[in-house]
Amino acid sequence: MILTVTLNTALDITYRVRNLTPHTSHRVTEVTERPGGKGLNVARVLAALGHEATVTGFVGGTTGRVLREQLSRTTGVVDALLPIAGTTRRTVAVVDATGDTTQLNEPGPAVTPAEWSAFQEAYEHLLADASAVALCGSLPQGVPVGAYAGLVRAARTANVPVLLDTSGEPLRRGVAARPDVVKPNAEELAELTGSHEPFRAARDARRRGAHAVVASLGAEGQLAHTAEGHWRATPPRRLRGNPTGAGDSAVAGLLSGLVERLPWPERLARAVALSAATVLAPVAGEFDRAVYEELVGQVRVTGEASAA
Amino acid sequence: MILTVTLNTALDITYRVRNLTPHTSHRVTEVTERPGGKGLNVARVLAALGHEATVTGFVGGTTGRVLREQLSRTTGVVDALLPIAGTTRRTVAVVDATGDTTQLNEPGPAVTPAEWSAFQEAYEHLLADASAVALCGSLPQGVPVGAYAGLVRAARTANVPVLLDTSGEPLRRGVAARPDVVKPNAEELAELTGSHEPFRAARDARRRGAHAVVASLGAEGQLAHTAEGHWRATPPRRLRGNPTGAGDSAVAGLLSGLVERLPWPERLARAVALSAATVLAPVAGEFDRAVYEELVGQVRVTGEASAA
Repeated sequence: MILTVTLNTALDITYRVRNLTPHTSHRVTEVTERPGGKGLNVARVLAALGHEATVTGFVGGTTGRVLREQLSRTTGVVDALLPIAGTTRRTVAVVDATGDTTQLNEPGPAVTPAEWSAFQEAYEHLLADASAVALCGSLPQGVPVGAYAGLVRAARTANVPVLLDTSGEPLRRGVAARPDVVKPNAEELAELTGSHEPFRAARDARRRGAHAVVASLGAEGQLAHTAEGHWRATPPRRLRGNPTGAGDSAVAGLLSGLVERLPWPERLARAVALSAATVLAPVAGEFDRAVYEELVGQVRVTGEASAA
Repeated sequence: MILTVTLNTALDITYRVRNLTPHTSHRVTEVTERPGGKGLNVARVLAALGHEATVTGFVGGTTGRVLREQLSRTTGVVDALLPIAGTTRRTVAVVDATGDTTQLNEPGPAVTPAEWSAFQEAYEHLLADASAVALCGSLPQGVPVGAYAGLVRAARTANVPVLLDTSGEPLRRGVAARPDVVKPNAEELAELTGSHEPFRAARDARRRGAHAVVASLGAEGQLAHTAEGHWRATPPRRLRGNPTGAGDSAVAGLLSGLVERLPWPERLARAVALSAATVLAPVAGEFDRAVYEELVGQVRVTGEASAA
């Protein structure tokens, strides 16, 4: 199975309203609710691609209970979340007639030192059965800033390929622990390296320790710097839609490609097509399978393999 | 016990944010959550005043389960809510640094004809032990618009004094069934009677069937038209604060006064003081007991009793 770690899970709520006007009252016309946090989104896409996915991380309180109930109805995703005393956060995305989103994010729970220790132990047990692991998203309060570095090292010790998708100081420290893949967006990459030129920044991120760097460039696709070569993958046409979850779908594409031992150009084509099929899907964070299958053959990948 | 009916219960969530700016992302700094819907608020104030309160109405889904859990921790309030297949709504109040509120109200559940029948039966059983009943708030989908008229008649048949606090067509039909008290605000009263002059409108509402009409005039207090006379009650000073729940506290004041057989001027003084103590409380919908006890003796009541 492929393991995904989400230390800061969330219940993602989407409200549709006509027009969001501060200091007035709104009738919500549509409510959707789903288990969230980046690793949970990645696992859902992996399951849709036919991979067995197990999710771990923290969950707690009444919102945590609702999240687990909904997760139990998601085919192909196994719940290995650890219960904590704190309460899982909700995120509320208010979408109005413009199609734009106003986001309200509850603070996450605080994790105790004992809970963090218990997680590390459970994580090592889960690694024993994992063919790959993705470490996804922000860290909740109480988890040390070097947490991902430790989890990367544990995965490498267990010989499990590890992908890291986070930002800021947790990314900086995590990269130094030499993960197999990091997947920053252009902004995260610039914050890590100080360079706003993605190709140069990706190369620099590799020097800092990551074996492969896949930078997402939004609508322009993705750029990969790896030991096997460097490539750029571009969707066949300009896409308009909701980018929520597009990065998580890309992670699922990269991870499934890694486990299936696809060559890098094919992994990137899959990641870009999944990402595009997520942007184009009517429901935020879901991907449109027909669109994915149509696009995956049309993604343009350019670049070159390194000399062996 | 005093019975309160809330057909459209809600889980009331309050988010504090710095500044609500549409189409941007916000960190919520504080989350509070409590069982809501007008009758539940009334019951909580009744319990705080030392009265036994029982709440009934509909509850369902995961939000309904959270609501009941929280209600079970409310001392003095007995849960006689009826489970339904639909899901109880949430309301999200976003309070920013201006102190103003942006409200997002989920649609309520749809109630089936069988659920509505089951409720009417349960309600008649509950009336047997009730010293008074309050019918509060909007009607969920699936409940007939004449619902309150039927519940008023059942209460009168059971010899239980009944207060109706709703608006629009359910109020219009409910008034015709001759409730003991209706408590519209100035706007609801104008909608019912066509008159924007509260004294005249309250008199007209009595002619339409209500035995007593108590109109809330916001910061200016309350006005009562009853068979025993007509009065006006004014808080001792101008109040600034959050009016959420002020009307529900007033209903609790009127109902407790009715059950304790207080003369009308004392009932009104209590209702106005509770309402003011709710506006002044730091938490929306709670009342400040010290403020209530200070104000209740200072409310100015003018008017006259009818000739016997």
